[in-house]
Amino acid sequence: MDDVVYKAGIAGATGYTGYELIKLIHRHPALEVGWITSESSAGKTMADVHACAWDYPLISLDEAMRRADEVDVVFLCLPHAASIEPVRAFDKTGVRVIDLSADYRLRDPAVYTRWYGVEHTAPDLIDDFVYGLCEVYRDEIRGARKIAAPGCYPTSVNLALYPLAKAGCLGERVIADSKSGVSGAGRKAALAYNFVEVHDNLVPYNVGYRHRHIAEMEQVLNGATPGGGAYRFTFSPHLLPVNRGILSTIYVTVTGGLSQADVRDLYAVAYADEPFVSVLPAGQAATLRHTTHTNLCVIGITPAQPDQPDGDEYIITASIDNLLKGASGQAVQCFNLAMGLEETTGLL
Amino acid sequence: MDDVVYKAGIAGATGYTGYELIKLIHRHPALEVGWITSESSAGKTMADVHACAWDYPLISLDEAMRRADEVDVVFLCLPHAASIEPVRAFDKTGVRVIDLSADYRLRDPAVYTRWYGVEHTAPDLIDDFVYGLCEVYRDEIRGARKIAAPGCYPTSVNLALYPLAKAGCLGERVIADSKSGVSGAGRKAALAYNFVEVHDNLVPYNVGYRHRHIAEMEQVLNGATPGGGAYRFTFSPHLLPVNRGILSTIYVTVTGGLSQADVRDLYAVAYADEPFVSVLPAGQAATLRHTTHTNLCVIGITPAQPDQPDGDEYIITASIDNLLKGASGQAVQCFNLAMGLEETTGLL
Amino acid sequence: MDDVVYKAGIAGATGYTGYELIKLIHRHPALEVGWITSESSAGKTMADVHACAWDYPLISLDEAMRRADEVDVVFLCLPHAASIEPVRAFDKTGVRVIDLSADYRLRDPAVYTRWYGVEHTAPDLIDDFVYGLCEVYRDEIRGARKIAAPGCYPTSVNLALYPLAKAGCLGERVIADSKSGVSGAGRKAALAYNFVEVHDNLVPYNVGYRHRHIAEMEQVLNGATPGGGAYRFTFSPHLLPVNRGILSTIYVTVTGGLSQADVRDLYAVAYADEPFVSVLPAGQAATLRHTTHTNLCVIGITPAQPDQPDGDEYIITASIDNLLKGASGQAVQCFNLAMGLEETTGLL
Amino acid sequence: MDDVVYKAGIAGATGYTGYELIKLIHRHPALEVGWITSESSAGKTMADVHACAWDYPLISLDEAMRRADEVDVVFLCLPHAASIEPVRAFDKTGVRVIDLSADYRLRDPAVYTRWYGVEHTAPDLIDDFVYGLCEVYRDEIRGARKIAAPGCYPTSVNLALYPLAKAGCLGERVIADSKSGVSGAGRKAALAYNFVEVHDNLVPYNVGYRHRHIAEMEQVLNGATPGGGAYRFTFSPHLLPVNRGILSTIYVTVTGGLSQADVRDLYAVAYADEPFVSVLPAGQAATLRHTTHTNLCVIGITPAQPDQPDGDEYIITASIDNLLKGASGQAVQCFNLAMGLEETTGLL
Repeated sequence: MDDVVYKAGIAGATGYTGYELIKLIHRHPALEVGWITSESSAGKTMADVHACAWDYPLISLDEAMRRADEVDVVFLCLPHAASIEPVRAFDKTGVRVIDLSADYRLRDPAVYTRWYGVEHTAPDLIDDFVYGLCEVYRDEIRGARKIAAPGCYPTSVNLALYPLAKAGCLGERVIADSKSGVSGAGRKAALAYNFVEVHDNLVPYNVGYRHRHIAEMEQVLNGATPGGGAYRFTFSPHLLPVNRGILSTIYVTVTGGLSQADVRDLYAVAYADEPFVSVLPAGQAATLRHTTHTNLCVIGITPAQPDQPDGDEYIITASIDNLLKGASGQAVQCFNLAMGLEETTGLL
Repeated sequence: MDDVVYKAGIAGATGYTGYELIKLIHRHPALEVGWITSESSAGKTMADVHACAWDYPLISLDEAMRRADEVDVVFLCLPHAASIEPVRAFDKTGVRVIDLSADYRLRDPAVYTRWYGVEHTAPDLIDDFVYGLCEVYRDEIRGARKIAAPGCYPTSVNLALYPLAKAGCLGERVIADSKSGVSGAGRKAALAYNFVEVHDNLVPYNVGYRHRHIAEMEQVLNGATPGGGAYRFTFSPHLLPVNRGILSTIYVTVTGGLSQADVRDLYAVAYADEPFVSVLPAGQAATLRHTTHTNLCVIGITPAQPDQPDGDEYIITASIDNLLKGASGQAVQCFNLAMGLEETTGLL
Repeated sequence: MDDVVYKAGIAGATGYTGYELIKLIHRHPALEVGWITSESSAGKTMADVHACAWDYPLISLDEAMRRADEVDVVFLCLPHAASIEPVRAFDKTGVRVIDLSADYRLRDPAVYTRWYGVEHTAPDLIDDFVYGLCEVYRDEIRGARKIAAPGCYPTSVNLALYPLAKAGCLGERVIADSKSGVSGAGRKAALAYNFVEVHDNLVPYNVGYRHRHIAEMEQVLNGATPGGGAYRFTFSPHLLPVNRGILSTIYVTVTGGLSQADVRDLYAVAYADEPFVSVLPAGQAATLRHTTHTNLCVIGITPAQPDQPDGDEYIITASIDNLLKGASGQAVQCFNLAMGLEETTGLL
Repeated sequence: MDDVVYKAGIAGATGYTGYELIKLIHRHPALEVGWITSESSAGKTMADVHACAWDYPLISLDEAMRRADEVDVVFLCLPHAASIEPVRAFDKTGVRVIDLSADYRLRDPAVYTRWYGVEHTAPDLIDDFVYGLCEVYRDEIRGARKIAAPGCYPTSVNLALYPLAKAGCLGERVIADSKSGVSGAGRKAALAYNFVEVHDNLVPYNVGYRHRHIAEMEQVLNGATPGGGAYRFTFSPHLLPVNRGILSTIYVTVTGGLSQADVRDLYAVAYADEPFVSVLPAGQAATLRHTTHTNLCVIGITPAQPDQPDGDEYIITASIDNLLKGASGQAVQCFNLAMGLEETTGLL
């Protein structure tokens, strides 16, 4: 490893994603914190906002833009729609940009508008971005200067199904029953996320075909399928009374007459060299615990009818930490690839 | 309501189900605790075992059988297989029996053996039992002297799908993704249920077609279907980090060309007079909180493709409290029906 | 019990206290819901606000005042300071008032102002109120028309120490280390109560001599002491990652040369006939679980130096459910006493 | 930092402490896993026992002893009493030993026997051990070959009070009200640690002067006091419904007429150069969150009577992660010191 240390700017640093990103940067031998921003807490420090001892001053986004040349990369941890213009502004300075919002993930601005309900004001920039799912788009991410880090739910579903889609063996109907920790909703005051409302509860929301993250599943899995896919998604996210982690339990049909061994082989081959994807032995399902506080995606493959060796229905379980592989960890993984560093640097 | 007060014996009173049953009996104007048993804690009192002030002495099952004539009804809260012979013994005394174990739920002893792995030593008694799902078998439960209270998971799934099955409109494939609180596993020392293992975790188990409770879903829903059903179940239970409650998210196809309004009507009609089943307005999904600490089953009906009014795919969410509607509450509801009391007595 | 059913108005019904009060009223044979109010949700129903099936319309406080004659008692579940004027308005209509806020608890308006930072605009009414801690002020509560229901923390500390204070045997220094579930903070959107902030955390706040509830401890315990007490309180509340319940671990010195048996006798005598106070056997400490979902206060008495039979230092543990004995349950207990009903009606 | 990498043997690796130690070793540039043992799971791998992908084989303690020469240091994560003889055996091989059990922490074997109820069968070895609280015994730990890593509760209390004791300003009576996550109880199947028993609960246990860890508080704080201390401890541990973390809320009197500024100065000076102890600004109390997943001890200093600048009563709050600073993190800190590495290596 060389000894260059890059400086990172973080826009929107006081959310859970930004906080986690700072922790990762602290462990990363080639990254250090440059400036960090917070619109609501500019003038304070991280220690004023979180139970931590980090005395980084929080500056405004405006000041950050003026100080773009102090950093080598900007990670944007802003809400969707709030990232569009800041990305454009940072991009003009020439600094490398990794955007963790949804704003530059979707290739088609019309799709963005349909799901997010806002016009995309920088459609010209979208083409410059690569979608930061390293296991699928590794070659494009290498050396990239603009990366859109994937959403948390789609990361779990896309990694769970990519080997099947790529092999053209994924049945048309995909049912993903996903459960997410509360940090996925962001750090905000809202009655729905008050402790008493979430604790001892389990809340399905946007069930069916209503959650924005479906767009990323369609883009990645349709795109990965030879000849293009046209999967029909049913996606049911649930709010789980834990802080972090996503478990997706996914019901699929495997086409092409594959045996159980064939299916396992598809995964084994697809992920043989992946440092952050782990396929469980037969008979095991992924749990939240498998990945909490790691950058891993752990996948379990279970035939739906264990007594029927030639059955074509499967349950794929996939677990990630929504703040790491589902957000900041994946962003750092992208950074490593983009800079030509070892992909796992600071993430093991 | 008349003023007769019946005495209840509880076999296996120190588990979570027995404990909850005692709380229900305390609120029930026509029930009081006779004797209660515990093999492991005989000689102690409930206050020695639970954080409560109940000084009921715990006696052995043997002593309880000798004192069968002191009670009007025996509730058995024993593990599966452990109930078979005690039920036979109590039955000989002529006392009314409500068994909360799985031992007398399945009509076919061969099916029992296939799922539970033990021979049924009292197959002759099975026919005397009625399956205590009041919303489906109300007439048979009225006046019944032997009742097998349903399992927790099947109660949520069966009530969620009964209107469709009865109307002959339930598609062949049923996928139930269920999440249960830890009390469903019973009160026992086991590493898998140690707080640290469960907290901040979500654990799928027996995923696919491996959980014993599938047998009750097949029995009830196949049986309710005109001409008999042959549904193909995929059932994925998950251990949820909460004490109590089950949420089942169920993926089905509705046959017969029904519109969304038709489907809602089926449920409205089927459950119009049910005191313990509540169907949510369109657009709402059931949450755990809807039913915790109640005897309710709350059901949400969501089209999988909201934009397609004639779509036939649905997500049915169903919530119950596994200790109440999924066990002791349902047992008391059966008791009320069996004794000719108002069905809701002590349960509202 | 007679067959009269009283109608209750609830001001501020959508908070956790109001919600719990409605549940209690449903179980109470002599109470039913009249109207309920919510300033923020007027025009909606409870089912719009909580995961429940209660279709009570929510009206404004103004409308409620015009409809005061429809109810026999008004329970006010409003924040402190917000209750002062509504109480005055309801009082003019002659309706019975039970105020669950802090506004009429403190006899001295100057003390109120010191702790709550607002002027008391109805000091003339304070004298009409009785402090609704039934175990201490039972005679005054009987027949009372204006009752100030006690705060949650003080209920646990006052019941824990009342027998010692009344006997003049409580040492001057009192250290109360209290832990409360999050519902004690009320139902509101605030980052500090966001699930992620509270879960897996324990947060001391207002440690020392800074929490408003100290005023109620001083008023009750100083008042109960023969000749008047002048206790010196150190009070450390902690926010606990549970929904409900308070556990106070209290460090005291017992004066007067009492033996351990003497101390236990003081409690046994003081609480011999109390339906809602339970003193644990020697060697046991109170846990949250002892009282959750009950109107009980459970107390444990532990000598600090078990080897020294004549030691004078004790640890008193006291557990209540903050929403029941610490709020709505206690309010109903007061109502029962005030109306001449059996004190335990609807509360067992 | 040099490039030597030491091999660590871990005895009792499948408990929570051992698991955490392996995670630390993975991040430590100068440590790697040699062998690891488990009596109950010998022959399996870590991945069979925990939800992780570590394929380290688990060997028996007997085999480990034969392979002592394969490692440079042995960390023993065994229960108390179970460490005495293995330590002797490993010691004979000459390997460096860091014992995380209580067996070699107490200088006086009679004190060990009094608290732990077992005879110490290797009293001759005790003198060779240094107590591994680096902030107090740093000089002795440098180069040490036998280190007894401190207990979790005592670490929080001793670091919280050490500056006062060392200055001779700690009042005789010390009241420590401590709350610990469940991992502190070890990884075992026991009804008391079943999820349902712990969740939504708070359980005081061994309240007063009954918990074994008091011995370590007495040893360290009495020893640190000029002329020797004779503190009188009241210690109340509570089982908290979280996985990890200890918060101690400690009530003390400061002697010697110190002002609040003086007291803060004592701490500032004592911990000025400590990498793992952080004293909060005035007005802040320590929370669990301050230290979870870190090797920090965070301390808050709060005057009990904020209005009395010359008051001598204080509340000291101290937070640690019981598995890190309270166990494995501290053990690695000791290792670093013992080997002459930077003390913070692998721990930041």
